Amino acid sequence: MKNVVALAGGVGGAKLVLGLAHNLPTENLTVIVNTGDDFTHLGLRICPDVDTICYTLAGLSNQTSGWGRKDDTWNCLKSLIKLDSLSWFQIGDKDLALHLERTRLLALGQDLTQVTQTLCEKLDVKTIVYPMTNEKVSTIIETDEYGDLPFQEYFVKHQFRPKLRNYKFEGIKNAKLTNETKKALNQADIVVICPSNPWLSIMPILEVENCKEILSKKTTIAVSPIVGNSAIKGPAAKIFFELGIVPSAFEVARIYKEIIKGYVLDTKNQNECDTISSWGIIPFVTDTIMSNESSKKRLAADVFRFAVKILEESTT
Amino acid sequence: MKNVVALAGGVGGAKLVLGLAHNLPTENLTVIVNTGDDFTHLGLRICPDVDTICYTLAGLSNQTSGWGRKDDTWNCLKSLIKLDSLSWFQIGDKDLALHLERTRLLALGQDLTQVTQTLCEKLDVKTIVYPMTNEKVSTIIETDEYGDLPFQEYFVKHQFRPKLRNYKFEGIKNAKLTNETKKALNQADIVVICPSNPWLSIMPILEVENCKEILSKKTTIAVSPIVGNSAIKGPAAKIFFELGIVPSAFEVARIYKEIIKGYVLDTKNQNECDTISSWGIIPFVTDTIMSNESSKKRLAADVFRFAVKILEESTT
Repeated sequence: MKNVVALAGGVGGAKLVLGLAHNLPTENLTVIVNTGDDFTHLGLRICPDVDTICYTLAGLSNQTSGWGRKDDTWNCLKSLIKLDSLSWFQIGDKDLALHLERTRLLALGQDLTQVTQTLCEKLDVKTIVYPMTNEKVSTIIETDEYGDLPFQEYFVKHQFRPKLRNYKFEGIKNAKLTNETKKALNQADIVVICPSNPWLSIMPILEVENCKEILSKKTTIAVSPIVGNSAIKGPAAKIFFELGIVPSAFEVARIYKEIIKGYVLDTKNQNECDTISSWGIIPFVTDTIMSNESSKKRLAADVFRFAVKILEESTT
Repeated sequence: MKNVVALAGGVGGAKLVLGLAHNLPTENLTVIVNTGDDFTHLGLRICPDVDTICYTLAGLSNQTSGWGRKDDTWNCLKSLIKLDSLSWFQIGDKDLALHLERTRLLALGQDLTQVTQTLCEKLDVKTIVYPMTNEKVSTIIETDEYGDLPFQEYFVKHQFRPKLRNYKFEGIKNAKLTNETKKALNQADIVVICPSNPWLSIMPILEVENCKEILSKKTTIAVSPIVGNSAIKGPAAKIFFELGIVPSAFEVARIYKEIIKGYVLDTKNQNECDTISSWGIIPFVTDTIMSNESSKKRLAADVFRFAVKILEESTT
């Protein structure tokens, strides 16, 4: 069986990761997750993308909201509101436990990789999930309206309304691939870049140390988060416009141009295949919308088969 | 109207404080609360005695358990248990908000007095509640079985089962009376030592700086936490036995001997009045069990009248 590493951000990434987990033996899938949107809130270390991936794999995610746990309650939050405390980042009572325990384990001196492994075990998540790095990286959104905004303030507090002028990943220069992510990447036959926001969810992972260089030597394929010219969820399409670019599948592929060998795009973007091919990237057109369990599995199976085909063609 | 300062620990103290709050104008009552049993749990600064006092005054306390909030839920705790996290100290979902907000405000650099004032305002507590000090003091219980135990581990985790060999207040030498407690004590006409555990709830307050000396110059009276030879709640009677003393009201009075002018004891301990009188302390016998709102008010009114009488007799 081929070893697959998936790079993922939040919701879109989690959907494909779940599909991959259904298609691959546990030992052949490793997920490396963006931690650029991690932050400290009410003294708690919160890793929104890691949490979304873990809750999704554990069958605990709230699929309606796209964040937090299903069937959660809000009694702590309601009491925080009565105390005029911070309440813009909504944490459910059950969800709180994960952040408390992560913060506790980190305070004991464990690194984020160890802590994530422990939490995955307790949540009965079999798939290996690694944070992209153990160092702190903070995605900062530069806006005219509010100046520099930490990602969660931009994304949640301001509901990604402010115009993004630019973005940066604070701490990225000191961020190292971990022994675990290095080993997983080295052993990977295939790397799948999930349909997450290319700048804000995937780029932080690619910018860690020599990650890009490693991926460029692998059978790396990406899945487009753009359908037609909009994003299924989140600010990706809006940011394209703000950067002066009409959103499209090939504009995402352009970002990954130097590292991907294959690119999966939606049937609605079929006419973009020529552009992608002209860059030496093999396109694969399919329905990329994952609205239920079976479409997640189906897309993941398609993506895997497509990648295996590229891999096999490149080695013969 | 006379100014009253009440010194209080947890449950017993809270009951009398509530009674005093019903009997006195807001501006004439200040409560100074033990913080020796404060601790950090799951990264949260928890002040059990301050919380009990504040929740009681806010009408939010759980009177059945004697700690936490009434009508609380336990979803975070249940999730912590599933994560094999720390769960021996049970924090309800609503209760959590208070600890999160306190920890957040302390991290912003506010001192515990300011933070407590803010939290009281938000909880709509009108009575002035001060922690005994802003510095950290940790009551440590010395046991044969487990060695040195921080108070909450002794009290909650081990349900005060281990035999107490001795106790100490770590950090007490660096603890200062705050400007607020100094002012309240200086302006006090009457100081009431509430029926809390004399060693573990009241002694830490008395040991802060020159608190004892200030009290010895005031009309200070204490209310016995012992009825017959048992304590209404908590380990007071058990500790007496472990220290080789048969528990009684006068044994508590002996602890306060140098600072109190009057002593309120239960009708069940009436025959101890002679001993107390022989130390120059004026005894006052009444029913000290506060099982409902009216008995709290009634005892508080009795205590206040008794103190005023001593005060007036001493000044004429």
